Order: sequence, then structure tokens, then C-alpha cells
Amino acid sequence: MTQQRKLKIGAMLHGAGGHMAAWRHPEAVADASVNFGFYKQLVQKAEAGKLDLVFVADGLYINEISHPTFLNRFEPVAVLSALAGVSSHIGLVGTLSTSYSEPYTVARQFATIDMISGGRAGWNAVTSPLEGSALNYSKTEHPSHELRYRIAEEYLQITKGLWDSWEDDAFVRDKESGQFIDPSKMHRLNHKGEFYSVQGPLNIARSKQGQPLVFQAGSSEPGKDLAAKEADAVFTGHETIEEAKRFYQDVKRRAVKFGRSAGDVLIFPGITPIVGFTEEEAQAKYEQIANLVDIDVALNYLGRFFDHFDFKQFPLDEPLPDLGDLGSEGFKSTSDRIKKMAKEENLTLRQLALKVTSPRSGFTGTPVQIADTIQRWFEEEAADGFMIGSAVLPTGLNDFIDHVVPILQERGLFRTEYEHDTLRGNLGLPFPENRYTSARRNQEATVEAVADAVGK
Amino acid sequence: MTQQRKLKIGAMLHGAGGHMAAWRHPEAVADASVNFGFYKQLVQKAEAGKLDLVFVADGLYINEISHPTFLNRFEPVAVLSALAGVSSHIGLVGTLSTSYSEPYTVARQFATIDMISGGRAGWNAVTSPLEGSALNYSKTEHPSHELRYRIAEEYLQITKGLWDSWEDDAFVRDKESGQFIDPSKMHRLNHKGEFYSVQGPLNIARSKQGQPLVFQAGSSEPGKDLAAKEADAVFTGHETIEEAKRFYQDVKRRAVKFGRSAGDVLIFPGITPIVGFTEEEAQAKYEQIANLVDIDVALNYLGRFFDHFDFKQFPLDEPLPDLGDLGSEGFKSTSDRIKKMAKEENLTLRQLALKVTSPRSGFTGTPVQIADTIQRWFEEEAADGFMIGSAVLPTGLNDFIDHVVPILQERGLFRTEYEHDTLRGNLGLPFPENRYTSARRNQEATVEAVADAVGK
Repeated sequence: MTQQRKLKIGAMLHGAGGHMAAWRHPEAVADASVNFGFYKQLVQKAEAGKLDLVFVADGLYINEISHPTFLNRFEPVAVLSALAGVSSHIGLVGTLSTSYSEPYTVARQFATIDMISGGRAGWNAVTSPLEGSALNYSKTEHPSHELRYRIAEEYLQITKGLWDSWEDDAFVRDKESGQFIDPSKMHRLNHKGEFYSVQGPLNIARSKQGQPLVFQAGSSEPGKDLAAKEADAVFTGHETIEEAKRFYQDVKRRAVKFGRSAGDVLIFPGITPIVGFTEEEAQAKYEQIANLVDIDVALNYLGRFFDHFDFKQFPLDEPLPDLGDLGSEGFKSTSDRIKKMAKEENLTLRQLALKVTSPRSGFTGTPVQIADTIQRWFEEEAADGFMIGSAVLPTGLNDFIDHVVPILQERGLFRTEYEHDTLRGNLGLPFPENRYTSARRNQEATVEAVADAVGK
Repeated sequence: MTQQRKLKIGAMLHGAGGHMAAWRHPEAVADASVNFGFYKQLVQKAEAGKLDLVFVADGLYINEISHPTFLNRFEPVAVLSALAGVSSHIGLVGTLSTSYSEPYTVARQFATIDMISGGRAGWNAVTSPLEGSALNYSKTEHPSHELRYRIAEEYLQITKGLWDSWEDDAFVRDKESGQFIDPSKMHRLNHKGEFYSVQGPLNIARSKQGQPLVFQAGSSEPGKDLAAKEADAVFTGHETIEEAKRFYQDVKRRAVKFGRSAGDVLIFPGITPIVGFTEEEAQAKYEQIANLVDIDVALNYLGRFFDHFDFKQFPLDEPLPDLGDLGSEGFKSTSDRIKKMAKEENLTLRQLALKVTSPRSGFTGTPVQIADTIQRWFEEEAADGFMIGSAVLPTGLNDFIDHVVPILQERGLFRTEYEHDTLRGNLGLPFPENRYTSARRNQEATVEAVADAVGK
């Protein structure tokens, strides 16, 4: 096996597309976000393209002005499970909030997806940026950003502990003797922490890849720390390669600080390629998409990142006033980025809103141009891989797979066949030995060393 | 369409089988409870047999002496979703506890299974009989039986309310005008009750069958009331036709008392047929299965229905002493039934334990005998349908489908083709109109009536 670093690619499954008005596009399937046949086709296309994984986002609160895809969409555990049954190699990663769920249930659900898929599940553990979530979960208030991250850290430790409830050889299943389990290989977590007490054991064994992967998507300081401590992969977003490189180095350094190796946590910037056979065609595609959205919708969408702030109170064609702390409790890193962009580029409210709803990324261009940029980001360590969003589905993803992936394959950057049938294997991440098996092995080694030392 | 009452049939998917030692049987698949290929084959077999539904049970606490299937099994939401993607007509029903979950999440998850399957989902709402569940969910104590049922009633009302968040024509999706939703057809529940406050709307629309079905499995007084008020179907268990008829009439009477029609709630006793070509062969099959279990395992299993009481403290071959209130907080109706059986038949502890682990039901016999008994129960209104358990899978279910179902079909009791592609349709239950659509229609009718009355 080669130790050469290989590019990883994931695909976002986001209904009719990531763009606010994607569903209006002539090639869009307007009910895509609740159309399982559509999801199945996308996943099978991504698998034919040898992609590492598909990714399903989530949220726990909507109102009249939410992104159309969010109003009516599949719950991630359920749709990923369904996709597990109709795919064979691709990873299946989905978002679930640690702020409004129970670790025992979530550990079971992702372990089940992992088992059904034969070791291809991943959990994107988020803390729910939307204030309104509390209203749907019998809570008087949404926990603060800082508190949510403290909860999330304990939560992830519990989940990973529960996933190790059974050592890999705990299920003996000897029909002759009648021994079903080796009870010494069943373990109770007995966790008692600040926020949770969870005894265990979990009522499901480990999968072929040991444990589901953990993704993390926050880019704030506590988010980066959590990712560096607990995550196998980070889903992030950057406007420039410099920013991406800083983030990449930052998270890797933190991982090393926490006693992990830099390669244990993979960085996946999200990008939204728009592919044309010429630059002009790509630009025309971008403009066609941007023109699908109207300004009121754009302002509402912008407000979503700022706790549903009503931007209509500001004049449309003047630079945006200072927003102070607005947004700091919700999508903190996104709202900070938007504020910075508005200031640096001196944008009017209209320009900002249209730019946020229809960002024209540096990944708009010909297949070769896009492959070049991907290669540069990858080789300069701004990314270990990319999460491919599509302004409009399925065309955005199809274009990328049909025209950009082959170039990356020709250049030897991306696989032409799956190396493994687990997500962990394909991402080149090590198999996590069961903690109790490790502990026993270490203990036995110590006993042996002591025996040697005393000359037995 | 005929109004004739038709027999309904569901199949339990319980790993290697319902019997304690099923996994030891020569024809059993020992890892069945975490083998998705096995589940898929079972469901496709059940669908080929035109069965109404498959059913997945659940529990939130295990220890060393749990039923082997419970130690290591799929979480129901995940496995039902996966099965939705590989089936086309059969209903998909699973257990999820109202005592350790959040209505917003559970409503979404079952709505998603319902959407993916095209209207074939059902939720068996249980209140978790196992005391130990609290230990896995950061709770200081398991709520009492009475409290759990009060919570469950509010919980079901919320879930059904959330499922109506969107009227059936709320998603306009007009690409030309840019109108995605009709906001007047999106509804917030704004529930504020004793245990929950949930605003809504849910972020998923109704499916082809309107709402997922609600099953209920408790047979205690509060359980029967809850079923009569809120459930579409009841999963129950009876030793004799007389007992089953009393239960049937009782629940139907309660339903009518609560303003529903008797046909709105279907009664499904669970039975475990053992089919032989002769009576002797059936009896031999039963004995082969019963002999797979040893007495220690049987005593532990018995203890499970009595809050994990340790029965080893009693002599094995003497009649069981009076157990008083034991078991009243957990599996109340089951433990009551066991106590009654022990007393009435004057059983020793050994006899009782073996009888509980290996009950020989009245559905052991030749295909014709079993079909006769089913027909009698159905025609005498002891059952609207049956939930077919299998001591050992897949043989138990295969035998039933291959040999008993054709007789029921020949007699015109059971379908030879699916009548519908939704679970509600196949069960003959009415489509539940969205509550807000009904309210609007009623209001309009009133306005019209008033207008008529005043001669406009």
C-alpha cells in the first residue's frame, strides 16, 4: 500500500441544489429534497465516479423564509439508512445535532447505518446554530455557543465510548456450546459527566470499520478545538486559498497538540464548482443561476445567518452599517465571514445579499481550470479533499463527475477504483482498535515486561 | 370497492427468531439481527406473500442476560428506512419509545420513512417497560407506568399535529412565478402542554398516506385507553380466543366511547405458528426448538418481565410462591399474565420458565389447522389480523407464507394482490385529511350555510 497522500471527494446531497432558487432552474427537480428516487440516482452516480462520500446537511427549525430545501426534506438518519441499502462503496455522512438529541439514541442510529452499509457511515456532529430550534424541543432557551460546544465534547466522548461497548470478538455465537457472547468482552461505559450520565452497553456491535466517522463543521475557536480533539474530518468553507491554508494548518496543529497525528483529521473545504466547456459558458451558467433569485428572498436568506435579523430596515443600495455582535450566537463563523466580506469589499446591502445567495466561487470555469485549482489547494495543503456542493442538482454534480474527476484521475490525484469497502479505508484513516481490547493488550504487555524484568 | 372485512397479516422481524435460543437452531442465521441482507430477504419474501406489514421491536436497555437478539440489533428507524428503499408495497412498522425521545425528531424520522417508502410507515409508540432505560438516558429514575402513559398521550398528539404542518397542496413549486410554497398552508402547532412545548412547523410534508400509522402495544388499562384514543392498530398477545375476544371488544368499545368508529383501530394479536405437514411434525418442530434453551437462560428470561428479578432464589421444582406486585412497573400486562398462568396451572418454577421461553401456542399444527384457527379468531372477532412471530427465522415465516397463506387466500380471507401501495390503503383505513384543510372546509361550509339561512 502506498503512503502517498490522495485527494478525497465528497458530494453534498441538498435537494434541488445549494442555491436558494435552484428549484426554479429548468434542469432542477423541484421536489428533489423529498424524492428518494432522485437521491438514489445521485448516490449511484457519485459511486460510479468513485467519490469517497455523500453528505446530508440538517436543521431543526424552519420558518416561511427558510431555504426551500430546508422547508421539506428528509431527516438524515432515515435517508442515509435508505441509501445504505442501495449502494456498496460510497461513504454516507449526515448531520445530527448534539444540542437536541440523546447520545444513546444517536450512537445506535449511526452504528446501525454503519452496520447496514458494511462500515460506510459518518456523523457530522453539529451544535445547531438556529436559535429557533429550542422552540421545537421544549426548551426555554437555545444554549449559548460556548455551552453548546462543551455539551458537544462530552457528547462525542460518550458516543465513542458506547461504540466500543463490544469488543470485536465478543459475539461468539457457538451453536454447539450455546455460548452467544463472551461477557468479558461486553463493557459498560458508566459515564457520569457534567451534562450526561450514560451506563451502556450499547445494544449494537462495532461495524467493519470499527466506529462511524465523526465529522465536525464549526469553524469557530471551540469548533476547531472540538474538531482537533474528536473529529476524523472537518467540513469547512473558505473564500481564498490563503484562508484555507491558515485554517488547515491551524486545525492540524491543534490535533498534534491534543496528542493526535496531523493525518488523523482530514480537512474538506466545501466548494461549488460551476463547469463550462469554456470560461464564458461557465460564467453564463453562473449568471443564469444567480438571476433565479429575487432581492426579498436574498435578504431573508442573509438574515438567517444573523438570527433571522430583518435586513429590510436598511437601505438597499448603501454600504451595510456595522452589525456589531449580531449573529454571534448562531452561525458564528459564517456570519463573521459575511461581515468581514461586506466591510472589506465595501458592499451595498443588495450586493452583499446577492453575493451570499449566489457566491461565485473560484471554482467556476473549465474542467481543466477547476482541476488546476483543486490540485493547487490540495498540493499546497489548503485541503485534504473537497466537499462538492452543487448550485443546481443533478447537473452540478454530474458535470463535476463527468468532466473534472477524469482529469484528477489522469493526474494521479484521485482513485480510479475504490481501495476499500469501508469509508475509513477509502479515506486512508486507521482502523480504531476497541479501547478495551487495547487496554487489555497493554496490560498484558506490562505484565509480561514485569515478568521479564523479575526474570520469570 | 367491497366493504367486506379482510384479514390483515404482519410479520415480526426479530433477528434469528423470537425464541430465546433461536440462533442455535440448525436453520438459523446466528448473526441475523445485524445482517441487513437477511432482513432484506425476509421483507422481500413477506412482500411476495402479500403481507400487510413487517414489524421491528425495540428496547433501550440490555445486560448480560438479555434475549440474544436484543444484545446486538438494528435501531428501528434506521433499518426500516433501509428496508423502505428495497421494497415497494409492504408496510414498515417499528417501535420507538415516547419516554426517551423528542417528538420533533421522532415525527421527522417516521415522516421520512413514510416519504421514502411512498406512504408505508407505521410507528409502534411504546413507553419503554425496562427500568434500566433511565440509566442510558441521564435520568435519575424511570418514570412510573402511569406517568409514562400521560407523557405518551401528549407526545402522540404533538406528533400527529406536527405531521399536519403542511396541507397537501402547500408546496406550489411554480418555477415560472417563483412561488415555492403557499404560506397560508404552512401551520405552526404552537403546542404548550404539561410535558412539552413544540412550536413547529415540521420540516417535512405529508406522504401519500397522509400520516404514518400509529401502533400501540400496551395492554394495561392506560395502554388500552391510549390505543382507543390515538392508535390505528394494536399489537397484543393472548393465550385463548376468549381472552382475545374480550380484549378486542374492550378496545373497540373504548374507541367508540372516544368518538371514533370501531373499525378505526385494528387489533393484531401476535402469534407464533409452527407449521408441520402433520401434527406430529409440528410437535416435533416445537420440541426441537424448546430443547435449545437451558434452564438458567430460561430463568433469566423470565426475570426480564419482572424488573430483572432473580428467580434462582426459589426452588426449581416447586410451585412458584406468590409474587405480589413484582413486575407492575415494567411489562405490566405480560407479568400479570405470567403470574396468572403460574397460579391457574399450578406450575413449578421450571415449568413456568420453560413455558415462558418456549410457549407452545394454539397455532402449532398443520397448515389447515392453523388456517382454521386463524379463520375462527378472525370471524369471531378476536382479531382483525395477526402479527406473525417466528420461533426461528427465516423458516418460521417461510413456512407460514408458503403453506398457510395460500389456504387463507383460497378461502377468500386474504388478498392475492395488494389493493393499494400505501399501508393505510392496504389495511383499509381511511386517509386522514389534514386537520387545517378540514377546519377550513368546515368553516367555509358554515359561512355558506349561514349565507343560505339569511337568504343571500
